[in-house]
Amino acid sequence: MNVDGTHFRTIWLAEDGWAVEVIDQTRLPHAFEVLRLETVGAAARAISTMVVRGAPLIGATAAYGICLAMRADASDDALDSACAQLASTRPTAVNLQWALTTMRDALVALPAPQRTQAAYRLAAEICDQDVAINRAIGSHGVEILRELSQRRRQADRLNVLTHCNAGWLATVDWGTALAPVYMAHDEGLPIHVWVDETRPRNQGGRLTAWELQHHGVPHTVIVDNAGGHLMQQGLVDVCITGTDRTTAAGDVCNKIGTYLKALAARDNDIPFYAAVPGPSIDWSIRDDALQIPIEQRPVTEVSHVTGRADDGSIVSVQITPDGTPLANHAFDVTPARLVTGLITDRGVCPAHGEALHDLYRHAEPVLDS
Amino acid sequence: MNVDGTHFRTIWLAEDGWAVEVIDQTRLPHAFEVLRLETVGAAARAISTMVVRGAPLIGATAAYGICLAMRADASDDALDSACAQLASTRPTAVNLQWALTTMRDALVALPAPQRTQAAYRLAAEICDQDVAINRAIGSHGVEILRELSQRRRQADRLNVLTHCNAGWLATVDWGTALAPVYMAHDEGLPIHVWVDETRPRNQGGRLTAWELQHHGVPHTVIVDNAGGHLMQQGLVDVCITGTDRTTAAGDVCNKIGTYLKALAARDNDIPFYAAVPGPSIDWSIRDDALQIPIEQRPVTEVSHVTGRADDGSIVSVQITPDGTPLANHAFDVTPARLVTGLITDRGVCPAHGEALHDLYRHAEPVLDS
Repeated sequence: MNVDGTHFRTIWLAEDGWAVEVIDQTRLPHAFEVLRLETVGAAARAISTMVVRGAPLIGATAAYGICLAMRADASDDALDSACAQLASTRPTAVNLQWALTTMRDALVALPAPQRTQAAYRLAAEICDQDVAINRAIGSHGVEILRELSQRRRQADRLNVLTHCNAGWLATVDWGTALAPVYMAHDEGLPIHVWVDETRPRNQGGRLTAWELQHHGVPHTVIVDNAGGHLMQQGLVDVCITGTDRTTAAGDVCNKIGTYLKALAARDNDIPFYAAVPGPSIDWSIRDDALQIPIEQRPVTEVSHVTGRADDGSIVSVQITPDGTPLANHAFDVTPARLVTGLITDRGVCPAHGEALHDLYRHAEPVLDS
Repeated sequence: MNVDGTHFRTIWLAEDGWAVEVIDQTRLPHAFEVLRLETVGAAARAISTMVVRGAPLIGATAAYGICLAMRADASDDALDSACAQLASTRPTAVNLQWALTTMRDALVALPAPQRTQAAYRLAAEICDQDVAINRAIGSHGVEILRELSQRRRQADRLNVLTHCNAGWLATVDWGTALAPVYMAHDEGLPIHVWVDETRPRNQGGRLTAWELQHHGVPHTVIVDNAGGHLMQQGLVDVCITGTDRTTAAGDVCNKIGTYLKALAARDNDIPFYAAVPGPSIDWSIRDDALQIPIEQRPVTEVSHVTGRADDGSIVSVQITPDGTPLANHAFDVTPARLVTGLITDRGVCPAHGEALHDLYRHAEPVLDS
C-alpha cells in the first residue's frame, strides 16, 4: 500500500539482496522508520518486541529469519536451532508455526550448500502468497460490503467496526480484515470505519488509523469500550476482524477484546465476520478452542502507555499506581456460534468445520498457487 | 476511607467553616492533593474537569456549590443561576439534578437571609445521607458475596470484576459497587478484584487500583478488553458496577463499556449486579433507556493519555496520528434483561420496574434518612 505516494510492503529484501528490511511498527504513527535485519536473532527480536506483528507478517518475518540463519550456517543443527528460536517468539499466531514448518520441510531435504538460495526463494514465495491470499480475501469480502451497503443504516455511510490492526501492516500487503475495506473504498462505496484503539498496545489507534489515513478511508478512532454503545445506536453495519488462529471448527482466536465485540454484534443483530487466511487455520484443533495457548505479554504494556509528548519526544508514561498487580492476556477466543462467516482466501463460509473443510479440501493448506 | 492511615472523605468543609475542600482526582494516583473551592464557578469547574467525578460525589459537590453561591448572593436570581451553571456541567448522572432540585426546593421557600445557613446544613445532610446509603448498599451486597463465596470457582479467592471507579472516590465515602467489597474483605472473605482500567480516563487503573491498594484488598488491573476472556476461563465469580442513572425499568446507564461486560457475564452464566443508590434512579424514564442523554466528552481523552514519566513529571502523550478523527461517548446503557439484580440502599431486587417501585414505594426518593 502507499505511504505518502510510495508503494511499500511491510517486509522486503534490502538492496544488497540478502539483508531484510521491515517497517518499525513500534515507531508508528509518530515516525516512519525502516529497520534492517541481518541475523536470525534480529528477526526473532523484531517479532518478540513487535517491531513486526500481525499473524501473516510474523510468518513472513520468520521465513526470512531462516534465510538469515542459513546464510550464516546452513547445517541441520543451525536449521533446527533457528526454527526453535523463532518458534518461541510468539505462542498464539499459528502462521508462525506454519511458515517455519514450510521452510524446514523444504530445506531439510536439500544438501546444505543449496539451502540458502532455496530459503530466499521460498521466503519470497511465502510473501507473494500472502499478498495473493489477502487480495483474494479482499475480493470475497467486498461482495459482502456491496450487499450490506444496499441496506446500510445511515444514508451517507456504511459503518464497519474493526478491532486491532488487520490491515496491510499486519501482513505483507493489503491486510486481511481491511482488504475488503480498501477495495470497497476504491470502488466508491461510502465506507466509514470505527477503529477500536485496542489496548494495551493501541494497534488500532496507532496503526489502523495511520493506514486508513494514508489511504484516505474515512474513519473514527474510539476506545474499546465504545463499540457496544455504537451498535445499540444503529451506528454499525458490520464487524470485520482478523484472526491469529482459527480452529478447524471455526472458533476465532484474535486480539483480546474481539469476543466482546462479537457478543455485542449478536445482541444487536449485526453481522460479525473474521477474515481468515488459509495459513491461520489450525486444522489440529477441532473441539476445544480454549486449549489454544494464550500469550501473556509484559504487564508494562498495561501499566504504561507510549506516545508523543508536546515537545515531540516519544515518552512512556505510567498510568497505574506504583506496585499495582497487573495481567496482560493478549488474545481471546470468539466461539464459532457468534461468527456470521469466515472470509477466507477461498471464499466466504459459515463458521463451522464442515464448511471450512469443503473450502480447503486438504487437511492442511499448501503453497500451491 | 483511609489514606495512609488517616480517614478521609472525598469532600468536606475547610477549617474556616465555609470553603469546601476536595481530593483532586485528576492527580491520583501519582499525587494526593487537596483542592479548595471558594465559588460556585470553582465547584462547577471541579465537576466538569473531573477533579471530582462519580455520580454521588458530583451531587454532593453541586450541593456545596449552591452553598458557595448563596454565601456570595442569596437572591432568587443567584439561586437560579447557580443551579443552571451546575446542572450544565455533566448531562448523564441523575444525582446532579436530584441534588440541585433538593437544594433549590428547600432554599426557595426560605427568605434570602436564612438561605446560606440552611444550604450548608442541607449539603452536609446530603453528604451524610450518601455515606448512609453506601453503607446500606455495602451491607446488602456483602450478603451476595458471602453466598457466592460458598461456591466460588477458585479455592483461594472470590473473583469480583468491576468497571470504572464506583469506590469511595466516586462518592462521599464507602463507594457503591466497592462498599460490599470492602465489607467482605474486612470480614475475612478472600476477595480479589479484577479492575478494568476503563479507558479513556482510566478511572479503574488510576482510582480503583489506588483505593484497593490503600485498603489492602487484593486486586489486578486489566485492560477493558480482557474481562470476557477471564470469564470464559472461569476466573470471574461476579461482576459489580456502579451506575450514573438507572431507569424506573431497571436499565442501567453507567460508564461506557459496562454493557460489554454484562453481555459477557450473561454468556458465561456469571451474575451481574449494579450498585444503585436511590438518588441515581431516574423515575421519569420508564420505557426507553436509549433516551438518556449520553455525554460526549473531549476527544483528547481518547487521543491522549496522561501519566507519570520516568523523571516523575506528569505528562500527556498523544497516541493517535495527527488529525485522526475521534469520538468519545462517556456512557452506555445495559438493558435490565442483562442485569441479575440491583443492589440498592433498601435491599437487593431484580432489575425491573415493579421490584424497584416496591422497594422505594414513593415515586421519588426523599431525604428521609
